[in-house]
Amino acid sequence: MSNVNFCTRCGFEVTVMVPPGDNLPRHTCSRCGHIHYENPRLVVGCVASWEGRLLLCRRAIEPRLGYWTLPGGFMENGESAADAARREAKEEAGADIIIDAPFAMVSIPHINQVHLFYRGHLGHDGLSPGEESLEATLISPEGLPWNQLAFRSVAFCLERYLADAGRNCFGFHETAITPP
Amino acid sequence: MSNVNFCTRCGFEVTVMVPPGDNLPRHTCSRCGHIHYENPRLVVGCVASWEGRLLLCRRAIEPRLGYWTLPGGFMENGESAADAARREAKEEAGADIIIDAPFAMVSIPHINQVHLFYRGHLGHDGLSPGEESLEATLISPEGLPWNQLAFRSVAFCLERYLADAGRNCFGFHETAITPP
Repeated sequence: MSNVNFCTRCGFEVTVMVPPGDNLPRHTCSRCGHIHYENPRLVVGCVASWEGRLLLCRRAIEPRLGYWTLPGGFMENGESAADAARREAKEEAGADIIIDAPFAMVSIPHINQVHLFYRGHLGHDGLSPGEESLEATLISPEGLPWNQLAFRSVAFCLERYLADAGRNCFGFHETAITPP
Repeated sequence: MSNVNFCTRCGFEVTVMVPPGDNLPRHTCSRCGHIHYENPRLVVGCVASWEGRLLLCRRAIEPRLGYWTLPGGFMENGESAADAARREAKEEAGADIIIDAPFAMVSIPHINQVHLFYRGHLGHDGLSPGEESLEATLISPEGLPWNQLAFRSVAFCLERYLADAGRNCFGFHETAITPP
C-alpha cells in the first residue's frame, strides 16, 4: 500500500484496517473514520499512423528516459479515455490524432496500472515534441526500435498492431504483465 | 475536485495549485509539497451467460438499491482487470465465471469512472447472492428488466451483447456517457 500517514479529511493519523463490511485493509482515519481507497490508475495512449509509419516519442523524463514509447499518460478526472489519448498525443508529440478504435489493454498488477491503447491516425504530419519528449517522429514498421522501447505494454501493442495490420483486420487485444 | 483538506504524507493543510511543470490544479501540500493526484477509477464487470441466459444481480446497496446490474465493482490494486471481474462475480453472485474476452468500455467523465465489461460464461449454474446483492439470477434475453437497470453503462453493454449474439459475432464496444 502507498504511503498514506494522515487523513485527507481531518488531518489525523490513519491506521491500516479492514473496514466493517469490507474484506481488504484500507488506510482508515483513527478519528473521523474516513476510508482512503486506492485503486489502479489508467494510462491511455494511441498507436497512430501516417502513410504507413507510426508515431513514437522518445522520453525526456523518468522512468525510462531516452527510450521510445507511444504517446500516452495518466487519464485525468473529467475526461473520457479517448479524450485522454488525444490530449496526450497533443502534449507529447504536438500531434492531432483521429481515433479509430480501442485496440489493446494491458493490466500491470504489480504497479497498479492498466494501460489502454487506441489505434488511430494523424490528421496531418506536423509534429513537435512536448516537454516530456526528446523527439516525436514517424517510424516505419521496419525501423521500429524494439530494443529501445520504454515499456513492455508498448511492445505488446506494437506487436499486435503490426500483426493485425498485416492481415488488414484489427481486433482488441488484452494481456496482463507480471514482474520481470 | 474531491475533498482533500490535509496532506496524506505530513498532515499539513493542502492548497489547490498548478504544480511546476503541470497544467492542471492539484491538491498540493503547503509544507512538504506532496502532490495528491486524483484519477478516474475503473469499475470492472462481466456479462456472463449460462445456456442462453445472462447473470444479473439486484443491488442491495446504494446507489440504485433494488435495481438490476451486471456483477462488477471497483478494481483493486494488485489485481488484473480480469481478476477483478472474476472476483466481483464471486462476491456479488457466488458465481464462478470463465472470461471469454473484453467486451465493452464506457467512460463516464462526470463521475470520474471508466466501466469495463468482459463477456464470459458460467462454469456451473450455482449462484448465491453476496452481501451487496438482493438476488443473483439467470435471466433470458426476453426477460431482461430494461426499465429497472441500475446504470446506463449496463444497458449499453447488454444492448451490444444481444446485438452481437444475434449475429454470432462479438466485437469490442466503446462509448462515453454524459450527464443525464
